[in-house]
Amino acid sequence: MALLSMSLESLNDLFIDELRDLYDAENQLVDALPRLNESATNPLLKTALREHLDVTYKQILRLEHIFQKMDKSPTGKDCEGMKGIIKEGDDMASRDGDPSVIDAAIISAAQRAEHYEIAGYGTVRVYADLLECKGYAELLQKTLDEEKEADKTLNDIANTIQISARAA
Amino acid sequence: MALLSMSLESLNDLFIDELRDLYDAENQLVDALPRLNESATNPLLKTALREHLDVTYKQILRLEHIFQKMDKSPTGKDCEGMKGIIKEGDDMASRDGDPSVIDAAIISAAQRAEHYEIAGYGTVRVYADLLECKGYAELLQKTLDEEKEADKTLNDIANTIQISARAA
Repeated sequence: MALLSMSLESLNDLFIDELRDLYDAENQLVDALPRLNESATNPLLKTALREHLDVTYKQILRLEHIFQKMDKSPTGKDCEGMKGIIKEGDDMASRDGDPSVIDAAIISAAQRAEHYEIAGYGTVRVYADLLECKGYAELLQKTLDEEKEADKTLNDIANTIQISARAA
Repeated sequence: MALLSMSLESLNDLFIDELRDLYDAENQLVDALPRLNESATNPLLKTALREHLDVTYKQILRLEHIFQKMDKSPTGKDCEGMKGIIKEGDDMASRDGDPSVIDAAIISAAQRAEHYEIAGYGTVRVYADLLECKGYAELLQKTLDEEKEADKTLNDIANTIQISARAA
């Protein structure tokens, strides 16, 4: 929490602050995705969560690359938004109930996490453009595309699971 | 937190749980939006935050209408996701720095809140369809459209503010 009160004098300060927020968010997800995977039952959902863990590692490396280029530390901020979303996800995943309904609840929690990241990466991608850091913008756009794709995949799986949950 | 461990036996249970999550999220926003508005400087942003407060009141009424029809209480769940997002927003809004950069930070926080709601309302709208509750689905779609519109409005304002923040 060392940088909680970092002053925001320029768009570059805000860019760094937001990147640190996303770096912490991704690292929280690396811990949370295996827990959600363990609670999930549907094979498609389990595969999607496992695959998204691999993608998350790549996204973390991209952020580390940007921080290295900027000669800044990637740590220093706790992502409170992702912390709350994961807390909700863990709560849903640990409930008693019908397995297909729990799967639907896990998807709903995972989509909240994806949307948090879509908002976050959408913002830093625009900042990178404005700061004329074309290389960073391209890397951040790549992650943004992956987050949107993950949200779409979860939607597709949800359609199957929700139909089965309706019958529960 | 009375229903934190409510069992999820059917899609209807999950529907109610998710609606309660959104009800708490909207009520948290009613408290938070005036604080963000007070910290904002840009007149367009201040207007957008004020207008979204009015919209939020209407969205709360819609949820109350659905709960009333279902003969269920709207309360009983703390929305941890929105709590974390608002905590971040309050932190950003209270920083020292250039006013246009603070405005950009407030927009970024508000867009995270919008995206949380886009994910949440998108989910319950689909559940309402699956549960063949056409009337609820229409109300939830209305709110979903408003959240998407609010996100778009914030994007438009961000374009002006970020250009000014770049010069800071």
